[in-house]
Amino acid sequence: MAKQAREIRLKSRPVGMPEAANFEVVTVELKDPGPGEVLVRNGWMSVDPYMRGRMYDRPSYVPPFALGEALQGGAVGTVVKSNDPNFAAGDLVESNLGWREAFVSTGAPLTKLAGGVPPQAYLGVLGMPGMTAYTSFHRIGDPKPGNVVFVSGAGGAVGSTVCQIAKIRECTVVASAGSDEKLDWLKSVGVDEVVNYKKGNLLENVRKAAPKGIDIYFDNVGGEHLEVALEVARPWARFIECGMISVYNDKEPSPGPRNMPYIVGKRIKMQGFIVFDFIDMREQFITEMTQWVKDGRIKWQETIENGIENAPKAFLTLFSGGNAGKMLVKLD
Amino acid sequence: MAKQAREIRLKSRPVGMPEAANFEVVTVELKDPGPGEVLVRNGWMSVDPYMRGRMYDRPSYVPPFALGEALQGGAVGTVVKSNDPNFAAGDLVESNLGWREAFVSTGAPLTKLAGGVPPQAYLGVLGMPGMTAYTSFHRIGDPKPGNVVFVSGAGGAVGSTVCQIAKIRECTVVASAGSDEKLDWLKSVGVDEVVNYKKGNLLENVRKAAPKGIDIYFDNVGGEHLEVALEVARPWARFIECGMISVYNDKEPSPGPRNMPYIVGKRIKMQGFIVFDFIDMREQFITEMTQWVKDGRIKWQETIENGIENAPKAFLTLFSGGNAGKMLVKLD
Repeated sequence: MAKQAREIRLKSRPVGMPEAANFEVVTVELKDPGPGEVLVRNGWMSVDPYMRGRMYDRPSYVPPFALGEALQGGAVGTVVKSNDPNFAAGDLVESNLGWREAFVSTGAPLTKLAGGVPPQAYLGVLGMPGMTAYTSFHRIGDPKPGNVVFVSGAGGAVGSTVCQIAKIRECTVVASAGSDEKLDWLKSVGVDEVVNYKKGNLLENVRKAAPKGIDIYFDNVGGEHLEVALEVARPWARFIECGMISVYNDKEPSPGPRNMPYIVGKRIKMQGFIVFDFIDMREQFITEMTQWVKDGRIKWQETIENGIENAPKAFLTLFSGGNAGKMLVKLD
Repeated sequence: MAKQAREIRLKSRPVGMPEAANFEVVTVELKDPGPGEVLVRNGWMSVDPYMRGRMYDRPSYVPPFALGEALQGGAVGTVVKSNDPNFAAGDLVESNLGWREAFVSTGAPLTKLAGGVPPQAYLGVLGMPGMTAYTSFHRIGDPKPGNVVFVSGAGGAVGSTVCQIAKIRECTVVASAGSDEKLDWLKSVGVDEVVNYKKGNLLENVRKAAPKGIDIYFDNVGGEHLEVALEVARPWARFIECGMISVYNDKEPSPGPRNMPYIVGKRIKMQGFIVFDFIDMREQFITEMTQWVKDGRIKWQETIENGIENAPKAFLTLFSGGNAGKMLVKLD
């Protein structure tokens, strides 16, 4: 293990769409781990859409990233040297100290992982995206067999997991994504109807795919999709508001849906959440999802960039829709 | 009792703001009540914002009003003659057959009223508006002592009741209405802070009135108020979506709030409802509200038009904000 490691820092706050110039690669010296500290070499790091929010300097549920400091995010790594009795060299661990090749843990939460699945699964279906999908779909969506579920951003890590959980729960699933390749994969894992939002009129296409309307909308994108979902919603529909990637990079706030009064008339419940709100479901999630993965009932796709220097590129890919499934950066 | 009675029919569907020409007064012959039928003379009828929705010819939770037929709505009347063993002459009854001076009930639901309060209270605090306020505030709003509650359209029948229930539940109440007279009355019944939405910048004024933000938003108006509520909402705020009167008469759909992503980031729950959804709370509502009325803990204002011919005028008043409290038409 070199005594140096590279990390990605936020050089300037993006205005609108982030670009490579907002980031910089910096090489830092790693000190030896002191008493109670652990040296970890990251093997995989995650890039996720929510990170865009932390690049704004504004109050939110997590503090903004600081300029000139390394970014943060999910990472899976291996313990190189440990002065903490809870960890030993060779342990597989998860942390929120991604965006760097290695780090000395000085009190930041570090979770030992069971293994038995590919390590990067802990950043996907068995990690934050999987838990986001699992907890909110059950807690807010309240799915019933026969419900029609509409998922936007269905090609991504969260969306593709929601689609498959909804099938396990005996729902009819309509998925929207921006490429036929993503949609073909979704069909291959059991999705009933697919809509390419880049082709033709979104409302007409969703109406065709869900002629009887929808009971649950899992929203990853906001914007036009949200308006369409309000339009086709059945009475008492549940809208799981996971993200609105379509507007994250707006320089000026975009107007919301023109059909908001449907919330009243159709008695819609629209609810936002953060995955940590459902932390009480963590054990249930891990148990059930691990079984589904082992049984081959939940599958996933990965899009991988290699090397810390390509982490900003991987992050930008999320907003062009270039990733199929979980977007990852392989660091070792 | 004359054998004739006047009724108000929908002559044409309003485009945008309704006007007098959309309605007509027609005199009809009343047949004698047959076996099992009841002749009722209405004493009071209600006009409510939701009726605007039924004037559109579109699918909704209730069928649209038919052109050339009498409108419908809450009414309190007295039984004149009864061939139904459940009713006797002189009984005070509630029906959905307002917009007419008298009617022969042929199977339409008729509810005998207990009395002991002014009869028109059954169209207000003890009727549909009161039940709308009571049920949704508790079921969706989930109020806790110390919560800050923001009520738009607070001068109306529903809004003014919500304000007082919120005070009983030990919340801090910020009320918005369009006239200082309405706001003075609201302060007189215990509302903590008031905002006249016609004066100055709404967002700034609400921020001043609720410097720590809001936990519950009771929405009667939609539009700019909804955007402001999203802006000042605290994490986990509950939005009770009762109505959006500000957009009911739009000829073209208006854009929604520009800050919809707050639903995600602040984990807001926004939920629409119809009073019938909470019918299981009816007994609890009647019991508690009757007590509050008798104890003087819930007060109300009325704005009264006299004579069936003025019912359309009373209805139009709802959209100009000309009513203080419950808008009623006195028919006898």
